[in-house]
Amino acid sequence: MTAILRMHCPDCPGIISVITEFITSNGGNIINLDQYVDHSNGVFYMRVEWELDKFAIPREKIRDYFETLYARRYDMWFHISFTSHRQKMAIFVSKMSHCLYDLLARYTAGEWDVEIPLIISNHPDLEIVGRQFGIPFEVVPVTRDNKAEMEAREFELLDRYGIDFIVLARYMQVLSEDFIARYPNRIINIHHSFLPAFVGAKPYHQAYERGVKLIGATSHYVTADLDAGPIIEQDIARISHKDSVSELVKKGRDLEKIVLSRAVGAHIARKILTHGNKTVIFS
Amino acid sequence: MTAILRMHCPDCPGIISVITEFITSNGGNIINLDQYVDHSNGVFYMRVEWELDKFAIPREKIRDYFETLYARRYDMWFHISFTSHRQKMAIFVSKMSHCLYDLLARYTAGEWDVEIPLIISNHPDLEIVGRQFGIPFEVVPVTRDNKAEMEAREFELLDRYGIDFIVLARYMQVLSEDFIARYPNRIINIHHSFLPAFVGAKPYHQAYERGVKLIGATSHYVTADLDAGPIIEQDIARISHKDSVSELVKKGRDLEKIVLSRAVGAHIARKILTHGNKTVIFS
Amino acid sequence: MTAILRMHCPDCPGIISVITEFITSNGGNIINLDQYVDHSNGVFYMRVEWELDKFAIPREKIRDYFETLYARRYDMWFHISFTSHRQKMAIFVSKMSHCLYDLLARYTAGEWDVEIPLIISNHPDLEIVGRQFGIPFEVVPVTRDNKAEMEAREFELLDRYGIDFIVLARYMQVLSEDFIARYPNRIINIHHSFLPAFVGAKPYHQAYERGVKLIGATSHYVTADLDAGPIIEQDIARISHKDSVSELVKKGRDLEKIVLSRAVGAHIARKILTHGNKTVIFS
Amino acid sequence: MTAILRMHCPDCPGIISVITEFITSNGGNIINLDQYVDHSNGVFYMRVEWELDKFAIPREKIRDYFETLYARRYDMWFHISFTSHRQKMAIFVSKMSHCLYDLLARYTAGEWDVEIPLIISNHPDLEIVGRQFGIPFEVVPVTRDNKAEMEAREFELLDRYGIDFIVLARYMQVLSEDFIARYPNRIINIHHSFLPAFVGAKPYHQAYERGVKLIGATSHYVTADLDAGPIIEQDIARISHKDSVSELVKKGRDLEKIVLSRAVGAHIARKILTHGNKTVIFS
Repeated sequence: MTAILRMHCPDCPGIISVITEFITSNGGNIINLDQYVDHSNGVFYMRVEWELDKFAIPREKIRDYFETLYARRYDMWFHISFTSHRQKMAIFVSKMSHCLYDLLARYTAGEWDVEIPLIISNHPDLEIVGRQFGIPFEVVPVTRDNKAEMEAREFELLDRYGIDFIVLARYMQVLSEDFIARYPNRIINIHHSFLPAFVGAKPYHQAYERGVKLIGATSHYVTADLDAGPIIEQDIARISHKDSVSELVKKGRDLEKIVLSRAVGAHIARKILTHGNKTVIFS
Repeated sequence: MTAILRMHCPDCPGIISVITEFITSNGGNIINLDQYVDHSNGVFYMRVEWELDKFAIPREKIRDYFETLYARRYDMWFHISFTSHRQKMAIFVSKMSHCLYDLLARYTAGEWDVEIPLIISNHPDLEIVGRQFGIPFEVVPVTRDNKAEMEAREFELLDRYGIDFIVLARYMQVLSEDFIARYPNRIINIHHSFLPAFVGAKPYHQAYERGVKLIGATSHYVTADLDAGPIIEQDIARISHKDSVSELVKKGRDLEKIVLSRAVGAHIARKILTHGNKTVIFS
Repeated sequence: MTAILRMHCPDCPGIISVITEFITSNGGNIINLDQYVDHSNGVFYMRVEWELDKFAIPREKIRDYFETLYARRYDMWFHISFTSHRQKMAIFVSKMSHCLYDLLARYTAGEWDVEIPLIISNHPDLEIVGRQFGIPFEVVPVTRDNKAEMEAREFELLDRYGIDFIVLARYMQVLSEDFIARYPNRIINIHHSFLPAFVGAKPYHQAYERGVKLIGATSHYVTADLDAGPIIEQDIARISHKDSVSELVKKGRDLEKIVLSRAVGAHIARKILTHGNKTVIFS
Repeated sequence: MTAILRMHCPDCPGIISVITEFITSNGGNIINLDQYVDHSNGVFYMRVEWELDKFAIPREKIRDYFETLYARRYDMWFHISFTSHRQKMAIFVSKMSHCLYDLLARYTAGEWDVEIPLIISNHPDLEIVGRQFGIPFEVVPVTRDNKAEMEAREFELLDRYGIDFIVLARYMQVLSEDFIARYPNRIINIHHSFLPAFVGAKPYHQAYERGVKLIGATSHYVTADLDAGPIIEQDIARISHKDSVSELVKKGRDLEKIVLSRAVGAHIARKILTHGNKTVIFS
């Protein structure tokens, strides 16, 4: 069992030494450390993971000690998590199955240390996939007009299943600001373009019209600004003049599922730190 | 010596057969044919290259015959060129040397069937590169205020050297509409972003601010709309949160030179056909 | 409904014209043509697809006519298939599920014009996947010692289900020469390396030992020489010194499934022609 | 001015803390730290860079102190270098100019903190490039028969110009074991294949014969085993059945120059650590 600290603070000499000394002198064995200084803005970022077996400070007091001893002194933002806590992830889908299958195939193969107890959809079409994998599939038929009421039902479901974070696997409804505010940096979306190109609806049509030679996909945390949240991962595929819109859609599917799964994997492994509207992805 | 036909027309049955029959029955040996039908818009595109040694129609009459026999009948746009004509290319640069060196190194190595008799710059900084490679380097200090006068000088130079097409190798001046109109689909630019993302000035700064995980470069024909002409080639490179703007600039250089050179190579080989605001890149 | 001709013959002038004339003059509308000449070996390759609605020659006589009129004259190898025939594909698996899920997710989503009536495995572990998707899953516990007997059972199954071609989705048994001879260019394998590097067992271990910076995957037709058949598709992923063998295995999974699915898609669309030990992949 | 420590030792708790404490408590400001544990072999690797302005230990004594205080205790291999020392690099070429031009264009543009005072070639063909860039170009016509004598001349030149490391930019002679032993991990070669595929002569021909769908390039440190030294960087480009050997050669050039330059850049920045036959590339 390990603890993972993610933090940032104004850059100052000695900060790595101080934190590693804190861990080591209390009996923690550091198994991973990734650090980075943004010299232009003077910000120090770090992620450290250490084994807790012989760590002198009890788990439930680590945050408090760290806050008192270091966070205040160095004007630090920090977050400590424990790998003993297995996160619970909900998937939101609409009618397209490719991302959903990719996520569930990885889940079934044990690729991730996560639990997926709930799928929510605004359509019943993919109910069969829930049955195939034995995962509760709740149809919540959100529309523009009944959003508040339906989201209330979703909150109830998310709470009941103890969901930690949400993955929008080509979910075609816009979440309300209230919804987004409940899960800051905990809703991962896949947008089927190379953001910031082709924001909004029908990005493959936009790409086709513009005559680009590459299509892209972008996974990002959802914020109140549509398609403008912190980017986690992007990738592209080569296309040609021969590709119609429907071929772009088809080629894009492979991109979408890979890019979404990479983001989900990084989130599960607590490798992402969000600062401002950007992500730091630790190695 | 070969002839190269590039054409498009409303799609109709038998068109390939008719054109290949025309070439073959007149003694031409087809060495390359690439064809493609845009089914959604009903347009047929083709590029055919054939050997002229035993071709019955004299070179200077081929266009006329083709126009009379086929182009009118099929409502065709077409262009016929001959590889015996070695094209002349001018390079426009400002202060950055990476694209210029890449173009000239390929030229010197004989990679392309082209002649480069002229380099034009709005700054004297890279004059030494002209001298290194023994190519006339003309400084034409265009500014916003003297554009008409300076472009007149450029036209004179371009005419004197018999320039067929122009490559903007990180040239930092916007050409006038008049200039662009003189060289339709014959001015190739490299823009240092994945268009249509980050149009305009300082795209690496824009990319840094948005926190993208990939940077791109786009080569395109120049049209009156800034950074909006038909895209010829694009590519991307992976970056991370660790990369400052100056590292993006550095990583972008390799992209820019490769993407520009691919476009220039395709243009020289007469593999590009422009229709509307898009390119068809034949293989 | 369309016909697809794939052919190669010694290169000679007029061949495109002759074949397109044959199709067009008999009322066939060509909707796709891709052609290529291997100038160093003097071989002409072509794939043509045309609509059969108004084609004058009855479907069952096309092969015969083509043989008589052209194939003999031009010393041609050719193959004509009809999209009205929906091919039947069997999947062979062992214990790893990632390729199997990827194939079945695409199948379920209707991405391919194919039928998958049969999964065969040497282990019962993935039986549940067959049940999830409602596809017969036959366990045939082949070992080195009972190969002849077990393969006889497989032949019986393949015949009963009318299988056209076989996909080895990380199937860990070597097929006998007899088996391979029954399905020439109709067994697609995925090898988890960038062939010809790391032939044989445990390629990720070999890659780790050698300290490569990229890992690869290769899909190919199975021939009697292990991992030496005609290559259909390859791709790579970037790794670093930080990746242990088990991380290579994990990163490799995404590669394997994408590379295998691209090959399967090309095979289903009849875009592959095999000549000698190489493939021509038409566009 | 900064110091850069690269080290590895048997993994043990507290090592990061000990070293960062050494630097920080002596007034050094750490500006970069990258660390990695190879858990399967129990080896700890680290690269730390710190500012020397206020560092209490004089530059010339740092190695000695570090050796006495830490290296012995932790059974460490280490190397400390100072960015105040500008390394001197020699380029070896034969007849192909693309890598040479790429290196010199970067050098001229000030991309690297390095000096290039010497080019050596076994042929006079590229002498003009030396003149273009004002760099001494020495022709040393090595053959199989006069190798010992000619290498003696090369050693004399390398010593006279104070060369730190050597870049083989498509140099077509095999160096003797004696030569290699003088520059351990200080000779960088570019091999035009995705090693370990296609070791030895004519890799593009080998790739063409095998019918691969990607070609590669590999930069590595030269060791006594041909093409088997520690790999620094690799990359690939997509090819198709349409590409003849000469087109592979042409496409490969872009790959070769990029892959070689990335390796050279990493070497100059002291980001590479070699252990066994592998490299660790710090970020």
